[in-house]
Amino acid sequence: MNAAKENERIEIMTASLYSAVISDTLDDLGYRNQVMRETLRPLEANDKILVGRAKTILAADCYHVQDNPYELEIKAIDSIKLGEVVVGSTNQSVRNGFWGELLSTASKMRGARGAVVDGLIRDTRKIIELGFPVYCTGFKPVDSKGRGIVVDYDVPVEAGGVIVYPGDMIFADRDGVVVIPNGLVDEVIAKALNKVNGENNTRRELLEGRTLGEVYAKYGVL
Amino acid sequence: MNAAKENERIEIMTASLYSAVISDTLDDLGYRNQVMRETLRPLEANDKILVGRAKTILAADCYHVQDNPYELEIKAIDSIKLGEVVVGSTNQSVRNGFWGELLSTASKMRGARGAVVDGLIRDTRKIIELGFPVYCTGFKPVDSKGRGIVVDYDVPVEAGGVIVYPGDMIFADRDGVVVIPNGLVDEVIAKALNKVNGENNTRRELLEGRTLGEVYAKYGVL
Amino acid sequence: MNAAKENERIEIMTASLYSAVISDTLDDLGYRNQVMRETLRPLEANDKILVGRAKTILAADCYHVQDNPYELEIKAIDSIKLGEVVVGSTNQSVRNGFWGELLSTASKMRGARGAVVDGLIRDTRKIIELGFPVYCTGFKPVDSKGRGIVVDYDVPVEAGGVIVYPGDMIFADRDGVVVIPNGLVDEVIAKALNKVNGENNTRRELLEGRTLGEVYAKYGVL
Amino acid sequence: MNAAKENERIEIMTASLYSAVISDTLDDLGYRNQVMRETLRPLEANDKILVGRAKTILAADCYHVQDNPYELEIKAIDSIKLGEVVVGSTNQSVRNGFWGELLSTASKMRGARGAVVDGLIRDTRKIIELGFPVYCTGFKPVDSKGRGIVVDYDVPVEAGGVIVYPGDMIFADRDGVVVIPNGLVDEVIAKALNKVNGENNTRRELLEGRTLGEVYAKYGVL
Amino acid sequence: MNAAKENERIEIMTASLYSAVISDTLDDLGYRNQVMRETLRPLEANDKILVGRAKTILAADCYHVQDNPYELEIKAIDSIKLGEVVVGSTNQSVRNGFWGELLSTASKMRGARGAVVDGLIRDTRKIIELGFPVYCTGFKPVDSKGRGIVVDYDVPVEAGGVIVYPGDMIFADRDGVVVIPNGLVDEVIAKALNKVNGENNTRRELLEGRTLGEVYAKYGVL
Amino acid sequence: MNAAKENERIEIMTASLYSAVISDTLDDLGYRNQVMRETLRPLEANDKILVGRAKTILAADCYHVQDNPYELEIKAIDSIKLGEVVVGSTNQSVRNGFWGELLSTASKMRGARGAVVDGLIRDTRKIIELGFPVYCTGFKPVDSKGRGIVVDYDVPVEAGGVIVYPGDMIFADRDGVVVIPNGLVDEVIAKALNKVNGENNTRRELLEGRTLGEVYAKYGVL
Repeated sequence: MNAAKENERIEIMTASLYSAVISDTLDDLGYRNQVMRETLRPLEANDKILVGRAKTILAADCYHVQDNPYELEIKAIDSIKLGEVVVGSTNQSVRNGFWGELLSTASKMRGARGAVVDGLIRDTRKIIELGFPVYCTGFKPVDSKGRGIVVDYDVPVEAGGVIVYPGDMIFADRDGVVVIPNGLVDEVIAKALNKVNGENNTRRELLEGRTLGEVYAKYGVL
Repeated sequence: MNAAKENERIEIMTASLYSAVISDTLDDLGYRNQVMRETLRPLEANDKILVGRAKTILAADCYHVQDNPYELEIKAIDSIKLGEVVVGSTNQSVRNGFWGELLSTASKMRGARGAVVDGLIRDTRKIIELGFPVYCTGFKPVDSKGRGIVVDYDVPVEAGGVIVYPGDMIFADRDGVVVIPNGLVDEVIAKALNKVNGENNTRRELLEGRTLGEVYAKYGVL
Repeated sequence: MNAAKENERIEIMTASLYSAVISDTLDDLGYRNQVMRETLRPLEANDKILVGRAKTILAADCYHVQDNPYELEIKAIDSIKLGEVVVGSTNQSVRNGFWGELLSTASKMRGARGAVVDGLIRDTRKIIELGFPVYCTGFKPVDSKGRGIVVDYDVPVEAGGVIVYPGDMIFADRDGVVVIPNGLVDEVIAKALNKVNGENNTRRELLEGRTLGEVYAKYGVL
Repeated sequence: MNAAKENERIEIMTASLYSAVISDTLDDLGYRNQVMRETLRPLEANDKILVGRAKTILAADCYHVQDNPYELEIKAIDSIKLGEVVVGSTNQSVRNGFWGELLSTASKMRGARGAVVDGLIRDTRKIIELGFPVYCTGFKPVDSKGRGIVVDYDVPVEAGGVIVYPGDMIFADRDGVVVIPNGLVDEVIAKALNKVNGENNTRRELLEGRTLGEVYAKYGVL
Repeated sequence: MNAAKENERIEIMTASLYSAVISDTLDDLGYRNQVMRETLRPLEANDKILVGRAKTILAADCYHVQDNPYELEIKAIDSIKLGEVVVGSTNQSVRNGFWGELLSTASKMRGARGAVVDGLIRDTRKIIELGFPVYCTGFKPVDSKGRGIVVDYDVPVEAGGVIVYPGDMIFADRDGVVVIPNGLVDEVIAKALNKVNGENNTRRELLEGRTLGEVYAKYGVL
Repeated sequence: MNAAKENERIEIMTASLYSAVISDTLDDLGYRNQVMRETLRPLEANDKILVGRAKTILAADCYHVQDNPYELEIKAIDSIKLGEVVVGSTNQSVRNGFWGELLSTASKMRGARGAVVDGLIRDTRKIIELGFPVYCTGFKPVDSKGRGIVVDYDVPVEAGGVIVYPGDMIFADRDGVVVIPNGLVDEVIAKALNKVNGENNTRRELLEGRTLGEVYAKYGVL
């Protein structure tokens, strides 16, 4: 992957796009199930946008401490590449905190931009202090040892009801988490930028006092 | 409706009342199911109170783009009157964001005080910037086109488990959302103001160190 | 109970421990179900730690106003002792706000450090102003009269899926709520302090750039 | 209560009515929340109709064995009168089987016609052999001792989402469980018998081949 | 549609196929979300297979009696064609019985083979007597008037989590309900018949005592 | 294990015991969480009792077809020993049918007495014809390939909320599924047989007309 081109993508998306306009663009292209469930929420209630390439990890519940329980988890974390976003699939387990401060620290040092976990996390205060953005479904200060185990990584996973392939572009803001299939990224960026203009016109005319009916008749945007 | 009288109602409620004392007053009058489910939460975690008359909108899930999909939605928004609170009923759909920034902007320009949506919304950052209070059950950056459609408005709807009639008074604060039936508004305000006094006495004596048993024996308030 | 010793415990736990390391320590001792469900959340999204001895109260749903409906509730509150944390079990009822401002005020005046309610609460703004930490599953401004009743106190209860005995040590922070059985408190504190050191080493070496594999091989902590 | 008149009611309802026509009649009278949740199902998948007067029992979850745990339960059962239907409210607990064979036997010997339990039951094979009709939400072979306790009886309870008062008429068939408020029983029976005729006409003409539109235009029944 | 060819399809499917082998065949063709949720169950616990073309009806919850509430419902039923299976989408409402005896009778007289309702039904005894197969999520003897309304028909709907287009082939047996997209029907039938043979070989050899490992190595079927 | 002794255990349990009395006996011994969730139901609504030693299998959800997807599943099935009951843990997945006819056939040929699956199954008609008792949470005719995978066997698993160790005794009847820890089996059988006598006395006296109060005072059984 061309690093300069990728940086440009990230910059444009961070500066000018938001999850709603990206979702609308994917809808127009016929990709109508690319937004994760509303249960995935940012760790902090602010506007920090998380963008990057999916590094997928698949976990499963277990009920005893297996041999080398962390083997695959460590391999997964240590193989993270610059600009990736960890996407953790736990099959919506609420038995333990799948993610925590030490994994965040190790991931950040390898170059990860953040993590999206369809499951619970722990060490929330320290993760916030670390400045590592995480989206998750909740919090539980319980270790995964004997409760959950990484069974695969760099494979397709489901997170928040969306199938995520390694290398897909993740875009998350306070409205939610969108998954842009790898092959569509540039097309989505270009079309989404156009949509932003249409919405700006609609907003401006509404603020000038025109009715929704008048403005919709003119721009066809709602 | 007498505008000056209505303004006075809003001012008194905003300055002196809160959802708990209104709920207790409705209980005393025999109206025991006037508080929405706890899943309805304010967009912002602050104390901004939302009060106004219900403008009801009923939506339903759909699975294809219908002809004129926005026809009723536009009519509903453009018929909002000063001082109203949009009450959106989606039958608790989580498939899309029923409400967003452009609808908020159009509603505010017509005079709406805010919105209560038993469903998801999107464009949360811009709605906060707009200063338009919204209560909802969560967030999803997904368009309603081909997923949900307005099927009626200015009719009775259910939101958060409460039947809301057009013109009912909505009172929402960080504890939750209460619906005061239109014909009871003045009686509820008067009785609730009395209750506030009783609670103040109880609180004061508790803070002076008396036991709950002593203070309850004296004021009968808990 | 020796008050000085107890104060020392509280100070050490507040200053140096957190829910995750306490949960891990309990795991090591074979107590693997001591953390409440992730639905128990702090009233305020901050880092204020709540530590103290469980004062248990058991409530049940009812459907009419019984004679002396508050009798046991008042006795429970007025018998709170210095340093206790109210643990309210409502069988996860969402019909009313089990806890509110007046109970918080009365409890605080008796010496309670805070409350953990497996149920809904009300009067959230005033409880925050009072500075009384509460963990709960949500908010509803609805009175318990004719909806819920205290049926027992100072007995074992279940809260957030954990059996809590009177006198157990409650430790709650933004990750969640842990219950330390009374007889294990000093052992847990000592072992948890040791664990904190191990995690500090791991974190430091990760921040120096070593891989997770290298650091785990050295310290065995994840 | 006049026993002969009551027997006549039971006979007419059993012979000629069914839950759907009773629900429709209650709807027409403005009582629109008299049917229990669909989770209440008959123990046996047959057509045996259960009709009788509600004998209400209210239970609550508990977590230790209390003194005299069966005191109220025994009083409740031993005070059953001829023709009653036990209505057990457990606040939808799934922790134990609230009802079983011995309670069924004791109830039947006092004159009970059956039981409607918003909760789980056990001893299902023996209850079927006893010929005692029970509606419930499922089965669990777990004792109530230390898990649930009767806290009141002969009081209003909620079962399946419906408030049931002692003496209300319960009508249950394989479609579900309807609660007829005591004061409406004779009016409901009379009006429901009329409705049965209208439906018979509609059915007959449909079977003769007329369209639904034609038949609805003629009888106004659907 | 060629009636003789269609009859042949129905006969082959009824005689030789079952939902599992059809689902496997659709999987192989890349259609992996064609089976409805496990909550859709046959009204009677027998082996009667329901096969036919989807006649879709979309309903929505409402909270007042609208003008001409049955207009679209009557049009939908009276336009049923020979060999169709009604597919009712209620957005999983549990507020009323969407389907009942009179609709079953009218549908059967128009030529419907049965109904699949993602929602509740009523009049179950009479529907069984009528011999009209219905799959649904449960039972409730409550009328739709003022609770639910047909908002469209002959449009794509979602039922049991599957998008169903008018004309798709529905195949339902006691394992569940499968939806075969219209354009794939003949291909699916042909390939599924082949699969049946492979499974027969596997079963026969297992019954002769070979291990699963041996038989799987030979036939590759599990 | 002594085969004759084991056969005697199975015969006594099948002839004289039932899940409720076994659960009560385990309660008395302090094992109060040995009964699976009420969602585990027999495939057939009859009284066939399933008893035998747990052969545990642990599955996890996945989202792509892995290499050798059936490797562990085949090893697990082919290592079944005479008298075992397969206990399948799927973490309550509803994505596919974990169990089916071919696995039932292979298991039965190895000597399995039946299966308890905390998940969905398929091929229900053929499994019934095979006479292989299965308890499960529902049905779905969807293959596990690319949806679920066996990750371990002969290890502790959770099924229906109970931790099951290999070799534990499973007892299932129409009331539910009980797990007797291996080391307690003979003690439980002996004590449960005693309990059966106490219940028989209670039942007999109730049927002779004594009140529940009288009989409970005499036998202390409810």
